[in-house]
Amino acid sequence: MPDTSTATPQDPAPSGRDANALWGGRFAGGPAAIMQEINASIGFDQRMWRQDIAGSRAHAAMLAACGIISEADFAAISRGLDQVAAELEEGRFVFDPAQEDIHMAVEARLTELVGDAGRRLHTARSRNDQVALDLRLWVRDAIDALDRQIADLMRALLEQAERHHALPMPGFTHLQIGQPVTFGHHMLAYLEMLARDRGRFADCRARLNECPLGAAALAGTSFPVDRHMTARALGFDRPMANSLDAVSARDFALEFLAACSTCAMHLSRLAEEIVIWMSAPWRFIRLSDAFTTGSSIMPQKRNPDAAELVRAKTGRITGAFVALTMVMKGLPLAYGKDMQEDKEKVFDAADSLALSLAATAGMVRDMVPEPENLRRWAGAGFATATDLADWLVRTLNLPFRTAHHVTGRLVAMAEAKGCDLLELTLAEMQSVEPRITEAVFGVLTVEQSIASRTCYGGTAPANVAAQAAEWRRRLGA
Amino acid sequence: MPDTSTATPQDPAPSGRDANALWGGRFAGGPAAIMQEINASIGFDQRMWRQDIAGSRAHAAMLAACGIISEADFAAISRGLDQVAAELEEGRFVFDPAQEDIHMAVEARLTELVGDAGRRLHTARSRNDQVALDLRLWVRDAIDALDRQIADLMRALLEQAERHHALPMPGFTHLQIGQPVTFGHHMLAYLEMLARDRGRFADCRARLNECPLGAAALAGTSFPVDRHMTARALGFDRPMANSLDAVSARDFALEFLAACSTCAMHLSRLAEEIVIWMSAPWRFIRLSDAFTTGSSIMPQKRNPDAAELVRAKTGRITGAFVALTMVMKGLPLAYGKDMQEDKEKVFDAADSLALSLAATAGMVRDMVPEPENLRRWAGAGFATATDLADWLVRTLNLPFRTAHHVTGRLVAMAEAKGCDLLELTLAEMQSVEPRITEAVFGVLTVEQSIASRTCYGGTAPANVAAQAAEWRRRLGA
Amino acid sequence: MPDTSTATPQDPAPSGRDANALWGGRFAGGPAAIMQEINASIGFDQRMWRQDIAGSRAHAAMLAACGIISEADFAAISRGLDQVAAELEEGRFVFDPAQEDIHMAVEARLTELVGDAGRRLHTARSRNDQVALDLRLWVRDAIDALDRQIADLMRALLEQAERHHALPMPGFTHLQIGQPVTFGHHMLAYLEMLARDRGRFADCRARLNECPLGAAALAGTSFPVDRHMTARALGFDRPMANSLDAVSARDFALEFLAACSTCAMHLSRLAEEIVIWMSAPWRFIRLSDAFTTGSSIMPQKRNPDAAELVRAKTGRITGAFVALTMVMKGLPLAYGKDMQEDKEKVFDAADSLALSLAATAGMVRDMVPEPENLRRWAGAGFATATDLADWLVRTLNLPFRTAHHVTGRLVAMAEAKGCDLLELTLAEMQSVEPRITEAVFGVLTVEQSIASRTCYGGTAPANVAAQAAEWRRRLGA
Amino acid sequence: MPDTSTATPQDPAPSGRDANALWGGRFAGGPAAIMQEINASIGFDQRMWRQDIAGSRAHAAMLAACGIISEADFAAISRGLDQVAAELEEGRFVFDPAQEDIHMAVEARLTELVGDAGRRLHTARSRNDQVALDLRLWVRDAIDALDRQIADLMRALLEQAERHHALPMPGFTHLQIGQPVTFGHHMLAYLEMLARDRGRFADCRARLNECPLGAAALAGTSFPVDRHMTARALGFDRPMANSLDAVSARDFALEFLAACSTCAMHLSRLAEEIVIWMSAPWRFIRLSDAFTTGSSIMPQKRNPDAAELVRAKTGRITGAFVALTMVMKGLPLAYGKDMQEDKEKVFDAADSLALSLAATAGMVRDMVPEPENLRRWAGAGFATATDLADWLVRTLNLPFRTAHHVTGRLVAMAEAKGCDLLELTLAEMQSVEPRITEAVFGVLTVEQSIASRTCYGGTAPANVAAQAAEWRRRLGA
Repeated sequence: MPDTSTATPQDPAPSGRDANALWGGRFAGGPAAIMQEINASIGFDQRMWRQDIAGSRAHAAMLAACGIISEADFAAISRGLDQVAAELEEGRFVFDPAQEDIHMAVEARLTELVGDAGRRLHTARSRNDQVALDLRLWVRDAIDALDRQIADLMRALLEQAERHHALPMPGFTHLQIGQPVTFGHHMLAYLEMLARDRGRFADCRARLNECPLGAAALAGTSFPVDRHMTARALGFDRPMANSLDAVSARDFALEFLAACSTCAMHLSRLAEEIVIWMSAPWRFIRLSDAFTTGSSIMPQKRNPDAAELVRAKTGRITGAFVALTMVMKGLPLAYGKDMQEDKEKVFDAADSLALSLAATAGMVRDMVPEPENLRRWAGAGFATATDLADWLVRTLNLPFRTAHHVTGRLVAMAEAKGCDLLELTLAEMQSVEPRITEAVFGVLTVEQSIASRTCYGGTAPANVAAQAAEWRRRLGA
Repeated sequence: MPDTSTATPQDPAPSGRDANALWGGRFAGGPAAIMQEINASIGFDQRMWRQDIAGSRAHAAMLAACGIISEADFAAISRGLDQVAAELEEGRFVFDPAQEDIHMAVEARLTELVGDAGRRLHTARSRNDQVALDLRLWVRDAIDALDRQIADLMRALLEQAERHHALPMPGFTHLQIGQPVTFGHHMLAYLEMLARDRGRFADCRARLNECPLGAAALAGTSFPVDRHMTARALGFDRPMANSLDAVSARDFALEFLAACSTCAMHLSRLAEEIVIWMSAPWRFIRLSDAFTTGSSIMPQKRNPDAAELVRAKTGRITGAFVALTMVMKGLPLAYGKDMQEDKEKVFDAADSLALSLAATAGMVRDMVPEPENLRRWAGAGFATATDLADWLVRTLNLPFRTAHHVTGRLVAMAEAKGCDLLELTLAEMQSVEPRITEAVFGVLTVEQSIASRTCYGGTAPANVAAQAAEWRRRLGA
Repeated sequence: MPDTSTATPQDPAPSGRDANALWGGRFAGGPAAIMQEINASIGFDQRMWRQDIAGSRAHAAMLAACGIISEADFAAISRGLDQVAAELEEGRFVFDPAQEDIHMAVEARLTELVGDAGRRLHTARSRNDQVALDLRLWVRDAIDALDRQIADLMRALLEQAERHHALPMPGFTHLQIGQPVTFGHHMLAYLEMLARDRGRFADCRARLNECPLGAAALAGTSFPVDRHMTARALGFDRPMANSLDAVSARDFALEFLAACSTCAMHLSRLAEEIVIWMSAPWRFIRLSDAFTTGSSIMPQKRNPDAAELVRAKTGRITGAFVALTMVMKGLPLAYGKDMQEDKEKVFDAADSLALSLAATAGMVRDMVPEPENLRRWAGAGFATATDLADWLVRTLNLPFRTAHHVTGRLVAMAEAKGCDLLELTLAEMQSVEPRITEAVFGVLTVEQSIASRTCYGGTAPANVAAQAAEWRRRLGA
Repeated sequence: MPDTSTATPQDPAPSGRDANALWGGRFAGGPAAIMQEINASIGFDQRMWRQDIAGSRAHAAMLAACGIISEADFAAISRGLDQVAAELEEGRFVFDPAQEDIHMAVEARLTELVGDAGRRLHTARSRNDQVALDLRLWVRDAIDALDRQIADLMRALLEQAERHHALPMPGFTHLQIGQPVTFGHHMLAYLEMLARDRGRFADCRARLNECPLGAAALAGTSFPVDRHMTARALGFDRPMANSLDAVSARDFALEFLAACSTCAMHLSRLAEEIVIWMSAPWRFIRLSDAFTTGSSIMPQKRNPDAAELVRAKTGRITGAFVALTMVMKGLPLAYGKDMQEDKEKVFDAADSLALSLAATAGMVRDMVPEPENLRRWAGAGFATATDLADWLVRTLNLPFRTAHHVTGRLVAMAEAKGCDLLELTLAEMQSVEPRITEAVFGVLTVEQSIASRTCYGGTAPANVAAQAAEWRRRLGA
């Protein structure tokens, strides 16, 4: 085994060697190295550089407008921030390990570029309100992006619903065949869930859309700032009304994580269905190579890896909610360094959900139902027994529970004969309930069953088409 | 040790005896007993009896209005439900173990009372939409009750804020003294958090306020029901638009649990502060015997048990969110028995939060700040150093970072002398920055520091009073 | 609607009425009522009465042996505790609401019965070490009971494995058919998991088996107690070595909850398989009425409710781990009232797992595989393609990756022809790889494939039988 | 704002711009890009390269020893793996995006280097057993490294315990002063917790130490492999006994995560204490600049950032346990792609705990107790009242509950006088209980109280010194 002394510190050594020497080496720099490693956030918070610079621009403009800094200083700051942004954009920005976070990194570079004007940028501001601002802006942007992705997935589902609004498939409870529904109806169920997910994100966005800037360290500032001006400039509805709350609140991040978790849960249900539908004994749908992985040895095999990964991401996102709630639990006001743990969880949940939405939209667009299999199982298992019971109620005026009982006896008879309800003779039916007439056979096919569910929200193809049209109107092209 | 054969099955035997005999006895009834025990929900879902009966009333009225059952049947059902409700209300209702849930228990008793009319109640309905309805109604009621409790707590905090809007206390970051704030300002920070919590509950309520009734088992019904009528009767905004979604959705429960979790997290922060403030070295507040437990041996001891329990409940409520998300993850449509796990978690979280809110409101009303201790620590630790730096910026036009540096040297000088900033002489100050004038001493007291934070959201007493007045207006008496 | 003024306080009012009046009524008793409700644990900790009394017996015996109380007092205490235990056992014990927990309830009743001797019981003890003791004893008893239940489930799985050690079934990856295995092999996989679960419980038991008694409030006691004597009497390996740790440690409860969670996770995997196997397109197994719920209308329907509930309990148990970890996070030494939240979570997880184990054992004993369906799918999807590749490596000395590639081409050929690998002609095979001989057909059947997996741990029937025999030996009858 | 078209895809755009264009750009490559992004694990699993190569070495050696590959092939493979390892070690390895994971990357490079021999390496192996092996090895190495770190932290605590075994400090319950203890005793409490944490890791290591290699895809292999040989070569106790279990088990990772979570919880308790002890009203300890962050403006400020971050990491690690449990819940055998989510969680938890342990060890070594403050508060709040009660029991033979009551009256008297118990006169004491003698004053000082706690595990300095000596023996130098 070659020498491993240059291994990256986080890699434990392979079995049989002195793991500690390597791992421990991580902290060989002594206290300073440990402290720097646990304390620094630059490794992840650099993702907020756009938000940080946007916030600094708005702050500097306000300082100038309020006469707290000169117009010349503002011009220098603006010019400097343009350059810093360009360097970051183009990957030319040099991160100095001495700058522990993106805020210090940007300000230090700015000061390098424009001198004293840069040293004036932090007037009437603190890292506490600055970091709260940046994360709010980041979450707001993430919500906007996720919202568009959810809408896109809804359109993909809608296309399937429109195309297959009348295609019968079995409706399940307990993964047992219950009653026939249409494939389009099933797709539209997910549109409803996703529409509520969008609603949760929109509510979260509206609630977080208050600007913490101006809270400074925790008590507000003695400079004559105009907090409404910065709030407006950054697209906020208003400044936050209490400075202690402004720097210590993270419920907006938790609300975002909870919304991500529940959206991911919805995706996991569809993902589970895709996995089951793809399984050989079902073959309800096909997915192309684009969304499956094959096996070089079994070319017919289409592993629904993407669906499995979407299903799994739910755990990770819910874990992020748990993590941040646990961080915030019992934290005294105002700021505690504990809160630095918020960002990685928020970033990871947003990324995981974005990826899951993209993969799901891709799968939904890609998937092709197998009409024969769907139709065959739609009618299996006496799936229209409820229709028979309802007929008995409607036609013979039997109380529902009594009709239930009669139906049970007829299904038992069919099961004993090894035939479908439709294949019982009228005489056989009348042996259980003499008033049954030939008309009963008009409600026992899959198509008739589906067609009869015309109540609002029911699975009748005309209903499904109407709902789909309504969604088309709402979602636009 | 006496014979233990009659022990309740869930009690493990004491150490040293055959634990299995007792515990295993639980399932001695064989498969049927196990199945009944794992399957039955009557032990907890009877809490929804009001909702169940309200739903049945609305459903029966609609069936009659649509001509699906006769007016006579409806009258009988109404009368019967009145009686069932009375029996439940008065604790006279006899639960038959054969009825595994509250829905069957009510219907069975109704049928006992009114015969065939009772057997017609379940027409065009299924337990799937019925249970979805009941839980939605229960959560909606719980939200209304919790909303009132949060408002009550807000009023309690507001009273403290009004009373102590100008009382100085130390503002902390990292539990280190940062800058002086007022006790009222600190109280108002919690009003902001709780207002957002109310917003989350209100949004959850608005989103869940759609009626699942009429979705039946999963596909809708073939009876000519009027779902808008039942929705209206039960106070819903509209019927749910997709029958599969109606019976399989539980995101409303998750949204409720997430809102509970975050509200509990906010309470836990205040609870932690109460625990710390009550600790001997701090003594920032007093709590009376009503909200502390004593020790018969140390009468001066006031253990803040209620605060500790409020802090702890966060775990339980967050655990409920985790539990239900895990239940729902990867569940195929439409109904799975897994979902039966929703209710206990929702009930427990609602109870725990209700109790925490009540206890917190009690503590807030009960607590009395200790002005001397608060004031003493408000000025400790050079808490007005930021004011000095701001003065240097404002008066001498130093760049902020430079002013920071100068202030640092002055604080170091004071620390070396073992005195406060205020106790440095002008000459000493000028030895660091010659342009400093006598005027600087006008910004270095706690009162001056607080009074200067007049920016919107800042801690200046006039600001705090104005914010309090605004809250008084919003919250009413 | 009848008057609801007597409703139990935790029930929210039905829609449309003043929910607050009812709910708020809960705390109508004022601060004292709220404090009592949040503080009291008697509602749940009475479950530990056996442990509490066992602990008191051991403590009193030690006090007497060490001369701290007299023999007469000890006799009185013993007699009194006998009576208290009898009253509790027989349900005659009268709980006084003034006694907030089981410890006070028992001691108060004892003192009522035996006077001053009762007042001497708490010498050299505190509720802090007493409650730590009781919960340790309870968890230890729960582990013993769960261990027996896991062993019972293992025996149930073993019976299936023995019976069906050679029955072919498809082995899956990604829920796609991979390679044939035997039903017995699949059953034995769960024995392995459960054996590790038992190991975790055993390790937890060994680690918690130290006695906290004698730590008193937190600092130990000045009485000349013999902590080793009480430890021995209660079946502990030794007393805990640090009094602060003794009263503040709850990692034993967390370790128990984590072990429960992972065991539940294992059960959830089997439960998911049962749900899928029971689904109509699969029909891999049958479950009798004892472990399914039917539908009065579709008598053929067998809803695997028990399996779904077992699957769901995982969420609840994992939620308990989260809840208690969140409670303990950041709690200063020694005792905080927060810890009172430990018991309900531990009880609920133990109950849920006990129920899940019982239901799973019942289902496993009840389930009957459907050999035709299993066998048919075992060979579907070119499941023996790996065997072909291995033959090419073994016989023709092709590198494995090359053999893989050749096999891929052969499978593609069979797929195009719509036949199995077995149904390709030798000539067809040789068109891809000329060196293939007739012998290849000896490895392409399901039975041959299975029989060839003779490596240790492989699925060959002889292996499975041997493993089963080994398990039979370990588990006993 | 400059053009942002080259932004990294995961960065949402700043406020006010079209967030979607950027974010959506991530998946602009179409389905293939999405699939690759969600599917690839090379971004994180390359951390297991040492384990992967170690596994391949052992596998190849066994293949040669069993005659499955030639000695020449084995030599070529060995040589090739040496080179691959060197390239990885030295950072020269070129990752080809077409290789989705570390396993394929290594094998592809090997084959490039040594041709057909490389193509033979995967004989009798599958990625399923390979990835299970690699993760087991990684976790085992991580446990070994963490174990050394815990031991190191224990030594740091032990040094403090030895140095301050007799230094009085207040012992707390509910953060209220309870009874005096010694600083050393408090330190030793954490040694106990950490020793149990080590025990959990050791048990986890022993349980996971079985080798999955040879399970192949899921059914075992038909090659005449020697699984015991590879198991031995890789330091395992034995091969896993069931091939399905070998590829599908992840309970070892969950057990690891649970152990990490509980260890982190213990660290969070100490971290909370450090934060509180550092707070101005307490000043129980000092931390140097090495483990605090300062403020350029308040040089006296020492923010305990490291302690806060250690406290916060608990959330993240517990979140990892939740995430993976949720992934595994309800997953059918054998392998599902969901399991790919295991690695990032395991890596992150191990890193977070390693960092927390290092930072905590650093803080513990760095911290210096403030004897005056500790001693002053140790005696505050009638902390020796228990000693008085115990004296009444011991000397006057009062029943404990009666002694309690008498003590309560005396404390009330002292409180009314505004003095300590020690400052009451004998006459005053006798006015409550006439039999009290001068001797009582011998038990009321802090030093006497501490010295009297000589029972096993008590806080008497001699006890603490003895326990520390015992730990010194166990932990070595």
